[in-house]
Amino acid sequence: MKLATIRTTEGLRAARVDGDELALLPFTDVGALIASGEDWAERAASAGDGARIPLAEADFAPLTPAPEKVFCVGLNYASHAAEAHLDIPQHPTLFAKFARSLIGANDDLEIPSASDKVDWEIELGVVIGKPARHVSEADALDHVAGYTIVNDVSMRDWQLRTSQFLAGKTFEHSTPVGPFLVTPDEIDHARSLRMELSVDGEVKQSSATDDLVFTVPQIISYISTIITLVPGDLIATGTPAGVGHVADPPAYLTPGSSVTCSIEGLGTQTTRCVAAREAVVA
Amino acid sequence: MKLATIRTTEGLRAARVDGDELALLPFTDVGALIASGEDWAERAASAGDGARIPLAEADFAPLTPAPEKVFCVGLNYASHAAEAHLDIPQHPTLFAKFARSLIGANDDLEIPSASDKVDWEIELGVVIGKPARHVSEADALDHVAGYTIVNDVSMRDWQLRTSQFLAGKTFEHSTPVGPFLVTPDEIDHARSLRMELSVDGEVKQSSATDDLVFTVPQIISYISTIITLVPGDLIATGTPAGVGHVADPPAYLTPGSSVTCSIEGLGTQTTRCVAAREAVVA
Repeated sequence: MKLATIRTTEGLRAARVDGDELALLPFTDVGALIASGEDWAERAASAGDGARIPLAEADFAPLTPAPEKVFCVGLNYASHAAEAHLDIPQHPTLFAKFARSLIGANDDLEIPSASDKVDWEIELGVVIGKPARHVSEADALDHVAGYTIVNDVSMRDWQLRTSQFLAGKTFEHSTPVGPFLVTPDEIDHARSLRMELSVDGEVKQSSATDDLVFTVPQIISYISTIITLVPGDLIATGTPAGVGHVADPPAYLTPGSSVTCSIEGLGTQTTRCVAAREAVVA
Repeated sequence: MKLATIRTTEGLRAARVDGDELALLPFTDVGALIASGEDWAERAASAGDGARIPLAEADFAPLTPAPEKVFCVGLNYASHAAEAHLDIPQHPTLFAKFARSLIGANDDLEIPSASDKVDWEIELGVVIGKPARHVSEADALDHVAGYTIVNDVSMRDWQLRTSQFLAGKTFEHSTPVGPFLVTPDEIDHARSLRMELSVDGEVKQSSATDDLVFTVPQIISYISTIITLVPGDLIATGTPAGVGHVADPPAYLTPGSSVTCSIEGLGTQTTRCVAAREAVVA
């Protein structure tokens, strides 16, 4: 099953992909659907006798617009650690994003005037389906609602000006998530999916999820030792080699750039970069 | 004006301190009160003709139980940077906590079995009162609802095992916040308040808020370049010297420890440490 959160004239709606159509579901978004109880997947599969829209006309919102938590894992592909001249860490390197950073799969990416080092990072996203606390690696996959694509867009100047990445990772409206939540049964828990990111048609990152250093079960089990993962929480599992900041010469996103992220079975995001409108709210 | 969020038999309630009593307000918590609109302070001052309870009987919940964002500033006192053998950064060092980490001012602090390096950090907490985006330092204080006490409890083993602090900073139920939100008029925007933390009656940290490297206006303006601060957001502004991890010998919190945090004009927190109950949620 493939699910999405779309914008309609009446606001956000969860929807299920049925062939080349979207069947609208009685939930505001995929996060609310998943939070509606353990049998959410059955409800999603059976509900939606009402409105349908052509998939081609979908305006994708952030797949989970308001997760309680967004965890990101740094340096989780050997190829990316190597290009950054960093060792593979002994433990998952966790940092956060705030939900306000998330945008829809095909939304415009706002390039802030404050950064001239806006970089890309295609990542496998994991959405939590039921609460997880102190879960073993063996049980961890039971807590996954599904998988999606995250572009962990990073303002490198802000990310690297102190020891802590957060400032460069949580710019407003900077992180495309979606288009779809794909349930684990369709893709064998994303164990081995090809992933590719292109900028203006040129392939920059090309890898597969079986190159992850810390696997999805390891990451979920590890986080669940720290804090309870709840339905709708999002984990961005890290990016492979090929980011712009360490290219020779370095390359960054600017207004007019177009970024395409594809993961096998999870669909494609296409994000156009625009100059941020920077109204003062004071 | 001093406000609090307390637990009642009917659930959470915002309350206003009136002498030695608390006047209950028609909001679930201080965060909801602040989010109710720009004139929240007038409403808080005038509302509450109903129930009152003795202040001495208050069961304080986290002051803002569900902020959209919790930002923390690292290395923001020269004395603490020095004891950690680190330079004072050129920019605010920002990291996150998730709201699920927050506890009430006098709640038990759960010491997880996974960490034997649980440390204390008294900090001035800032609660945002109205949206802030691209605000200047000169305008930043207009966006402050008030100030509180945060103990940025840190599992040092988890904090320092990778480059990113998050894992050690966001353990479940680990961060006391409160007891009060004190409005800026009562304390001159917390520009110069004595602060002191004791463990089992022994003073460990003693400083004042005028030792902050990056001031409250600087921090708010800086964050507002990255993302919109919204009413109820919490900023923990950093801790002065005297943490346990760099003491000789190092000292940590264990079940049975009692931590008292006081900031002039903001009240006192007393937190008893207990062994975490670690039920599996699987």
